[in-house]
Amino acid sequence: MSVVALIEFDPASGAATGHRLADADAALLRVTDLGATRGDGVFETASLVHGHVQALEAHLERLVQSARMLELPQPDPAVWRAAVLAVGDALTAEGVDEGSIKFVLTRGVEGGSVPTGWVFGTAAPDFTADRTSGVRLVLLDRGFRHDVSQTSPWLLAGAKTLSYAMNRAALREAARRGADDVLFVSSDGYLLEGPTSTLVLRTGPRLITPRVDLGILAGTTQADLFAWAEAAGFPTGYELLTPADLAAADAAWLVSSVRHVAPVRAVEGVERAIDAELTERFNEALDARTA
Amino acid sequence: MSVVALIEFDPASGAATGHRLADADAALLRVTDLGATRGDGVFETASLVHGHVQALEAHLERLVQSARMLELPQPDPAVWRAAVLAVGDALTAEGVDEGSIKFVLTRGVEGGSVPTGWVFGTAAPDFTADRTSGVRLVLLDRGFRHDVSQTSPWLLAGAKTLSYAMNRAALREAARRGADDVLFVSSDGYLLEGPTSTLVLRTGPRLITPRVDLGILAGTTQADLFAWAEAAGFPTGYELLTPADLAAADAAWLVSSVRHVAPVRAVEGVERAIDAELTERFNEALDARTA
Repeated sequence: MSVVALIEFDPASGAATGHRLADADAALLRVTDLGATRGDGVFETASLVHGHVQALEAHLERLVQSARMLELPQPDPAVWRAAVLAVGDALTAEGVDEGSIKFVLTRGVEGGSVPTGWVFGTAAPDFTADRTSGVRLVLLDRGFRHDVSQTSPWLLAGAKTLSYAMNRAALREAARRGADDVLFVSSDGYLLEGPTSTLVLRTGPRLITPRVDLGILAGTTQADLFAWAEAAGFPTGYELLTPADLAAADAAWLVSSVRHVAPVRAVEGVERAIDAELTERFNEALDARTA
Repeated sequence: MSVVALIEFDPASGAATGHRLADADAALLRVTDLGATRGDGVFETASLVHGHVQALEAHLERLVQSARMLELPQPDPAVWRAAVLAVGDALTAEGVDEGSIKFVLTRGVEGGSVPTGWVFGTAAPDFTADRTSGVRLVLLDRGFRHDVSQTSPWLLAGAKTLSYAMNRAALREAARRGADDVLFVSSDGYLLEGPTSTLVLRTGPRLITPRVDLGILAGTTQADLFAWAEAAGFPTGYELLTPADLAAADAAWLVSSVRHVAPVRAVEGVERAIDAELTERFNEALDARTA
């Protein structure tokens, strides 16, 4: 069960005017779309749980921010919000209780002046095992220094672009090493993020995540988790972290929009204890979100 | 005037079986194609000149090599050769004397087991000004060390992937600085390549290009140029080069498949002499290729 909404643009002004539902199994893109030929676009993936698109406003804000970093036409949040909600409603009407909704904005067909945009929704995979038994991580070099987003903004570190081939290659490398997921490390030794997730550590009562000035994404789910945690009495913080901090932490998780919170059960082949009770509280809190 | 050939794959085995011409203005890709959603694919661009697809075998070899680096299904050179030649012939029949032919292989639709492939041909832009007056370069950090392809192969340095958003951002940065093109430099200070070109320097009679173990593409056009140059009495070499070598060189060029040879007329705003006579000889030699 999949649903697609195409964003409609005014061919003269390039402004988004609305959306229309389309056949998810049909060809909808031209081979000259710069999203397909250059990975030249941005995206977001939100979760749909019990009829609610979660963290939608944060995802829309980040889409706008990524578009700004790529100098794409600014997406109109009202148009995108309506399209995402329509896709969410269609999935819910079809009985999808946990879904993922990806929204994509590309620079459009080469030589044209109008972007391409779509929203794709489908049922989410069953992440129960990841959420309860946890994931085994490898640490992989991302190649960039921790300060690259300040020194070299054209490298687009911290933008959520369609140019994700390296993220997928890193996941294949993890599988080759017998692991489930990746935590990237800067070339000068700081913990960054996963290919599609944010790292959260617990040290005593305190929850810590890497600073967002390291050329990484500001996690939408991590932000919601930290808001809940602060209200629940857990202090939170953003820091420069190293592999030694990960080894020393009382617990570690990868946090992402659709999988939510997955405890880290091993790093570089070394097993570590997972905090099953807190993981369950985290996932219940995230699951209960209605926005 | 554009022509598209779609590569056909056996849905059971995933093997390429042939190609069929398609409407270049039609939608031909699904929004779940991993080429469009993850930049997860590889490509080549060859030139068509006076009815000949140039360096076709070298491009096919590099496509196979890039596919191997991304662990994509191995492209069958026979099928791709036939498709590229069919597109070239169709363009030539329509009167296109200088064209570009892009061939793309993606990992296919998410969740499927069959790749997506197409060949897109169109008339080339008029590069006369670049080839004669030259291009102004800026040097931009690529963020990676010069040895990253050895230490961190999952970063796919040296594979020609669809994840090119950074290359396009770098070109926008060049334009912002009043330049035409970019020469990337490793984070530890070695000259690499342009977003879509190979650097060639002349020092005395000798032509030099950066070593291909620096996580850069082996240039197909540069290889043909060096073969011609050796025959014409110019020694050639592959070296570790720095910005000081560029400043000290007697002449410099960016070499690429469709634009061919463009002399470098300025670096970081500092004008430099171009070698008009040798540039013309280079371009005539490349233009005269029949394979």
